[in-house]
Amino acid sequence: MVEITLVGIGTGNPEHVTLEGRRAIAEAELILIPRKAAKDDLAHLRERIVADAGSRARIVHFDYPTRDQSLPYQQRVRAWHDEIAERWCEAIGDAPTVTLLVWGDPGLYDSTLRIAQRLPGARARVIPGITALQALTAAHAIPFNTVNGPVTVTTGRRLRDSGWPEGAETVVVMLDGECSFQALPGDLHIWWGAYLGMAEQIIDRGPLAEATYRIVSARAAARERHGWIMDTYLLRQPD
Amino acid sequence: MVEITLVGIGTGNPEHVTLEGRRAIAEAELILIPRKAAKDDLAHLRERIVADAGSRARIVHFDYPTRDQSLPYQQRVRAWHDEIAERWCEAIGDAPTVTLLVWGDPGLYDSTLRIAQRLPGARARVIPGITALQALTAAHAIPFNTVNGPVTVTTGRRLRDSGWPEGAETVVVMLDGECSFQALPGDLHIWWGAYLGMAEQIIDRGPLAEATYRIVSARAAARERHGWIMDTYLLRQPD
Repeated sequence: MVEITLVGIGTGNPEHVTLEGRRAIAEAELILIPRKAAKDDLAHLRERIVADAGSRARIVHFDYPTRDQSLPYQQRVRAWHDEIAERWCEAIGDAPTVTLLVWGDPGLYDSTLRIAQRLPGARARVIPGITALQALTAAHAIPFNTVNGPVTVTTGRRLRDSGWPEGAETVVVMLDGECSFQALPGDLHIWWGAYLGMAEQIIDRGPLAEATYRIVSARAAARERHGWIMDTYLLRQPD
Repeated sequence: MVEITLVGIGTGNPEHVTLEGRRAIAEAELILIPRKAAKDDLAHLRERIVADAGSRARIVHFDYPTRDQSLPYQQRVRAWHDEIAERWCEAIGDAPTVTLLVWGDPGLYDSTLRIAQRLPGARARVIPGITALQALTAAHAIPFNTVNGPVTVTTGRRLRDSGWPEGAETVVVMLDGECSFQALPGDLHIWWGAYLGMAEQIIDRGPLAEATYRIVSARAAARERHGWIMDTYLLRQPD
């Protein structure tokens, strides 16, 4: 039996951490932190948040396995989660509790909760965190939804595979490494942001017909400069 | 010219406040707090969050106008927002900055941002907060989405008017005072929660065929007991 606390820490601004999250980190006994060669800025940020919370937890690092690109998508994801769960088991050993810091919110397009559920006898406790959706609408100071209007939250992969969701008014796209908005009608309005909440934050907005080229260029340049990028965007039908 | 800072303060747990939100409240000069006769527990909570942040701001209370129920929905909402904006103008006077504490996140099914945009020469600054969506999935320790799956966020009114959104896999419903899930197929799975994040929190889950009666009864009893209720739920197609 192990209690796994997943703390949502927001999108890279250490001040996105909630008082509840900071308390959980401060009271943690064992904290697992992934090593990720590429996103060095982010790796340091987790350590900084732990230190800022005044935590005296034992910190154990683990490496993410590589994904088996020969498998079909869903199967590849499952196999990857299985392997991470095994690494966590090794890292946790006999400890009764373990805490992980999760970018954004542990519920939203994040695999940590699914991995936690693979550990035998594990009980997950989730502490909500600021997601990229909120960091995006906050950066642009826009509402997520129109009055009483629905919003579809989806992924770049799905937008490429299925196009604009049937009847959708507002669409928010996560996990899009390929600027999948490029194939959409030019009169859709986009609100885009990268490194949301961080000092490096860049945002842009406008009708796709005007904004697409600017965003694709800015994204490529920023990715080149930082070595990584995390971005998200909201699309809305014109009035 | 006035800078209006909207601070998302989460769903009723004072520890949902982020470090960024607490800093903004601590540094505020003028804070507007609505008086709301019904939800007394919530009114006190705002004052407590302000005090906890160590704020020495001047606090000005304002009353919400009553909505003109004779108007059609969208027009009624606009007229109400106009009137609130006028009351804010009076309350703000010549102050160069003003801060409001907003339940959840200022972008998500909240009118504060739309009201702020009505003030002549106002500039809105938004600080993201924990929404009921995250408080719900955290309380149940479930993912918001399936792997790579889309999520539709909508309202009770829209669910009643338009039924289950075409092709949706996961639907999250906000602002539903009428348990609008009652008309949906019984094999849909519901994860429901009220007073999310608060000491009074209640949650339930299960296939609609089994859970509907329990939730409708529990909701009515809780509403009677507290004098108010805020609830939200997530519905997912069976596997």
